[in-house]
Amino acid sequence: MTSAVPVLRSTAQIPFRRATLWESGYPTIAGRIPMTDIRPSVPDAAYAPSAFSGEIVPFTVTAFREGHDLLGVHLRLTSPSGEESVHRLSPRNDGFDRWTVLVAPIEQGTWRFRYEAFADDFATWQHAAYLKIEAGVDTALMRETGAELFELAADESDRPEPERELLRTSAARLRDPSVTDAEALAVVAAPALSHAFAQRPATSLVTVTEERELLVERERAGVGAWYEFFPRSEGARRKRNGAVVSGTFVTAAERLPAVAQMGFDVVYLPPIHPIGRTNRKGPNNTLVAGPEDPGSPWAIGAAEGGHDTVHPDLGTLEDFRSFVDAAREQGLEVALDLALQASPDHPWVTEHPEWFTTLADGSIAFAENPPKKYQDIYPINFDNDPEGIGAEVLRIVRHWVAQGVSIFRVDNPHTKPLQFWEWLIATVNAESPDVVFLAEAFTRPSPLKRLAQAGFQQSYSYFTWRNTKEEIEEFFTWVSDETADFMRPNLFVNTPDILTEYLQYGGRPAYKVRVALAATGGASYGVYAGYELVENVARPGSEENIDNEKYEYKFRDWNAGNSLAPYLTRLNEIRHAHPALRQLRNIRFHRSEDSAIVAYSKHIAAELSESGAADTVIVIANVDPYSTRESIVHIDPTVWGFAPGESFEVEDLITGATWTWAEHNYVRLDAFVEPVHILAVKGTS
Amino acid sequence: MTSAVPVLRSTAQIPFRRATLWESGYPTIAGRIPMTDIRPSVPDAAYAPSAFSGEIVPFTVTAFREGHDLLGVHLRLTSPSGEESVHRLSPRNDGFDRWTVLVAPIEQGTWRFRYEAFADDFATWQHAAYLKIEAGVDTALMRETGAELFELAADESDRPEPERELLRTSAARLRDPSVTDAEALAVVAAPALSHAFAQRPATSLVTVTEERELLVERERAGVGAWYEFFPRSEGARRKRNGAVVSGTFVTAAERLPAVAQMGFDVVYLPPIHPIGRTNRKGPNNTLVAGPEDPGSPWAIGAAEGGHDTVHPDLGTLEDFRSFVDAAREQGLEVALDLALQASPDHPWVTEHPEWFTTLADGSIAFAENPPKKYQDIYPINFDNDPEGIGAEVLRIVRHWVAQGVSIFRVDNPHTKPLQFWEWLIATVNAESPDVVFLAEAFTRPSPLKRLAQAGFQQSYSYFTWRNTKEEIEEFFTWVSDETADFMRPNLFVNTPDILTEYLQYGGRPAYKVRVALAATGGASYGVYAGYELVENVARPGSEENIDNEKYEYKFRDWNAGNSLAPYLTRLNEIRHAHPALRQLRNIRFHRSEDSAIVAYSKHIAAELSESGAADTVIVIANVDPYSTRESIVHIDPTVWGFAPGESFEVEDLITGATWTWAEHNYVRLDAFVEPVHILAVKGTS
Repeated sequence: MTSAVPVLRSTAQIPFRRATLWESGYPTIAGRIPMTDIRPSVPDAAYAPSAFSGEIVPFTVTAFREGHDLLGVHLRLTSPSGEESVHRLSPRNDGFDRWTVLVAPIEQGTWRFRYEAFADDFATWQHAAYLKIEAGVDTALMRETGAELFELAADESDRPEPERELLRTSAARLRDPSVTDAEALAVVAAPALSHAFAQRPATSLVTVTEERELLVERERAGVGAWYEFFPRSEGARRKRNGAVVSGTFVTAAERLPAVAQMGFDVVYLPPIHPIGRTNRKGPNNTLVAGPEDPGSPWAIGAAEGGHDTVHPDLGTLEDFRSFVDAAREQGLEVALDLALQASPDHPWVTEHPEWFTTLADGSIAFAENPPKKYQDIYPINFDNDPEGIGAEVLRIVRHWVAQGVSIFRVDNPHTKPLQFWEWLIATVNAESPDVVFLAEAFTRPSPLKRLAQAGFQQSYSYFTWRNTKEEIEEFFTWVSDETADFMRPNLFVNTPDILTEYLQYGGRPAYKVRVALAATGGASYGVYAGYELVENVARPGSEENIDNEKYEYKFRDWNAGNSLAPYLTRLNEIRHAHPALRQLRNIRFHRSEDSAIVAYSKHIAAELSESGAADTVIVIANVDPYSTRESIVHIDPTVWGFAPGESFEVEDLITGATWTWAEHNYVRLDAFVEPVHILAVKGTS
Repeated sequence: MTSAVPVLRSTAQIPFRRATLWESGYPTIAGRIPMTDIRPSVPDAAYAPSAFSGEIVPFTVTAFREGHDLLGVHLRLTSPSGEESVHRLSPRNDGFDRWTVLVAPIEQGTWRFRYEAFADDFATWQHAAYLKIEAGVDTALMRETGAELFELAADESDRPEPERELLRTSAARLRDPSVTDAEALAVVAAPALSHAFAQRPATSLVTVTEERELLVERERAGVGAWYEFFPRSEGARRKRNGAVVSGTFVTAAERLPAVAQMGFDVVYLPPIHPIGRTNRKGPNNTLVAGPEDPGSPWAIGAAEGGHDTVHPDLGTLEDFRSFVDAAREQGLEVALDLALQASPDHPWVTEHPEWFTTLADGSIAFAENPPKKYQDIYPINFDNDPEGIGAEVLRIVRHWVAQGVSIFRVDNPHTKPLQFWEWLIATVNAESPDVVFLAEAFTRPSPLKRLAQAGFQQSYSYFTWRNTKEEIEEFFTWVSDETADFMRPNLFVNTPDILTEYLQYGGRPAYKVRVALAATGGASYGVYAGYELVENVARPGSEENIDNEKYEYKFRDWNAGNSLAPYLTRLNEIRHAHPALRQLRNIRFHRSEDSAIVAYSKHIAAELSESGAADTVIVIANVDPYSTRESIVHIDPTVWGFAPGESFEVEDLITGATWTWAEHNYVRLDAFVEPVHILAVKGTS
């Protein structure tokens, strides 16, 4: 018999007790003990922060009081099912009055939390009594004050009886004149008493914050390895006359076992709907398509149907369902693209011309970036009929959810009204809380952050263009803290739209570094098919692959020698074996002298780990794909439970090499051999 | 006849119009055009931000919309008397979607403000029409679209008739086939049309934020030069037997003309109440006072009375009133100290023992920092009787307000409950809005910031210990922006408690630099008497003057040669002549190559200046008091209205020297001659 899943894991849970609040003499905004800068929180406070099930969330608050007396802070959590718990925060002692505790909520749904600050009467007494008795000042007074404090605590019926007995005998010893002051000092500092009061503190002036909410979503909202591919390319074949027979869901499904064997969690498909013929784009984004050119899947809609329809070349809706089932059997989820735009042939254009913009000359407006026009796409004008468009999109999403789809990658959400997404995601998640939306929000920071707050579970991010050591440290420091309460980056290393200069010129070493950083630095990452084949030739003057798969079929030899598939496979194995890597907020950078050697680690304490064992991984990457770099890497292993100066064993999970490490460690990384160490640390706690 | 004082000054006020709000199709938190990061604002949003009358406040908001269409943002302000106004924000174009406008509210009281974002239909059309007509794309369509936009605007009855006529003729020209596209382009770009639409934009999708409040207090809440002195020292004389006859309010009043002539605005007096005799401190903070030692004024209360009483040595309450009147006649305000603690002889100790902490042995607790005890002071225990203590302190404050005091310097507010201050200041300001409280909050950032939000009009600050170029730049950058919506530093250069190492060792140059930085860097600053005499000898091992005036009388020769009084006088003259220096938020740092040469400027645009003339001052300081430094100082004078590359005249307000400056300027500052340039810039706008 296995035990039930706990609703949470915590580093400092203490027994639940009701608190008696201090009733203030003054009608003020501040409570008796001021608290501020509450986290988790979001910039736009009307939204709630969010986390994924199992995510290790730092619950943090600034709390301080007047004068020198000591205080304590508790976190009070109520799970969606109503389970209440109390967690003791630790002071950071950084001069900024920050208090923090790590908790991993597991139960999905809306949690409520508040902080409770209190005068810690035992700690204040203990601090003063120790110093004063040691100095021979007010010794009798200090002993009597302590005895009274212990007696009050001993009377509390919810303390374990052995503890109450300890408190009684300790009070008696403090009062016993035959006990010397030196002996009394030992009572003052007794660890058992400190422990008793840490579990059930003697409190006064108890102040609470307002209650806030934290939305906990399913793990896949924040964690996963994605693989993007065009089903029409898988199984496509060229006929003798040069024409191509499209791949189908049936042939594409044959690729699924390989994707699963590489260890991916999600397969993401570009739009699978009928493609317009009017102004269809040809190879390499040319303006005229030949009769055999398949067109861009993002030019959605044709006589055969629109967003609710499967492209006839790919098969039937039944074929799609079978594909989803086949994926599920391989442990893969299918993510669909949601691109809200229409080709001029989309049924909406005739059925709902009011959903587009009609110009002064009566024509429908194409997408444009003046003076350029994109004549294969009509953008939707959401302001003409918000309710009608909303109802139609909701119908479409429900349709695909009914086919077994529970992840949507949303194309260019920042070109549609934010209000629409907030409404759509709230409406869908109210009926289907497990549906995950990924925002392809390659845009400025303000809309990027606001889309995440408005409901998107994940976002594409600036990671794609953060290549240098300094850029990588800044990026991960930002996303793992400042925005982590609401935004979860999905670290795609490439897309059909993006082949960065770093990848174009860095060769195989660049491909290894980027995917290793993505797979270990964040909790979600993705690759677009062809990455493993180091497809790094760009269309001149663009940041896209030449002969872009958006406009044509691709024929690839997945079994080519020198494929990075084994490398991807190993990275995903490492991710699955090491829960520390399936977190975002726990990344910590370490100092190296070399300007291209990035060093970071991720750690989960035993209390926060599902297995009950701590997990610690160090990643050292040479981000210069052209050379060999060496440096000393400086680490403070005491935060993982090692004694100062203690050495420890590490194992490189890529090569199997093992070393004995300590605070200062030599590394040498040849970009052309292995540009990245991924080191499991043994014996942490 | 002089015109009435306006309620505000603004860089971009436009005609008031009612707006028609967009009614959203979706019930969401986000509005149609999202807005966020609203300023002015405070970290603890339940409090309101504040400003002083005449303060130039940046009103700033993040606003963005989907896609590429252009937007505009307005600030809507309602003054305390109900006057409504509209101000057009400018985009910062920094990639963060920030919009800003500078407004100086003048009328005191609670203002209300909200932001209004809108689709700027003219700007969107103008942008697209110019590019497309120039490229020959959709020219007829663009011209017709513009003509329709102009006709709609021409129908608006609140536009001036000449503007309506312009719009009608412009529409006709766009439609006229005999007008070429090249000629139509001139209509598209016509400045008069851009101006008409900037004043009264063509708007759609109008979205507003919630209304927020801004408290505007009197100018002295944020602006002033303070001078602190002990009245008992002024006119004190030593008798033949060595005993001292205390100075009185009558003799101290004789010092007021000199303080006024130095140009100060406020005289601040340490506590003026009877001083306890029990455990009175002797010279240099020794534990035993001689019979003639006057004791620390902060050990408040004796048989003669407590906080509502004047020390008999200083005279009578009537004498104090006369002192306040004499100060007022000199243009000086009197600030009193509010130190909520008691000597063991305070009447409260017998009348209200419950206001103190009674220990287990029945004694009253002294102030302590275990194991040390301060046996001349009983701290108040606010939690024993919050209402009773509150009523008593309110009575005391009202008592002194009735004697003509409207500024209180609050001693150690961070050792009393924050709630108490929030309640006290709100209660006092509700009946006496002009009363100003200065927090002596030498404490950590969290309580410092929270006290300011809770109501303190001013705070002592970390300026006292910020000496290097890097520290000064960081400090002023912080207080002039991040905390400026709620915290106003009063830059005291020294106090009876603080004689920094920089002053102890830096000699006369250090004294000049520090006070010049204080007088020009912030809007409020202060000196404690003796600064002008370069009293820089510390009690060994302490950061205080030797023979501290807190414990004894001081006999000073104000007419000693080499006094810095003329320097202070000149600084205050410069402050009074240059409104740019009486602002905090307008400080901008400039680059210099030298590690000790600090360069900053302050500017007021003509529209924001009471006189209607712009004011610009550059300060260049050598903060190394031991040497001569030289450097190039780099400035961008285009922000002050100069053309790129244009030179301009500056006058050193300290020495009278004049130079012609431009973007790159050589400076040389000999610490032993004049360590600081204060340069008035001629001809700015």
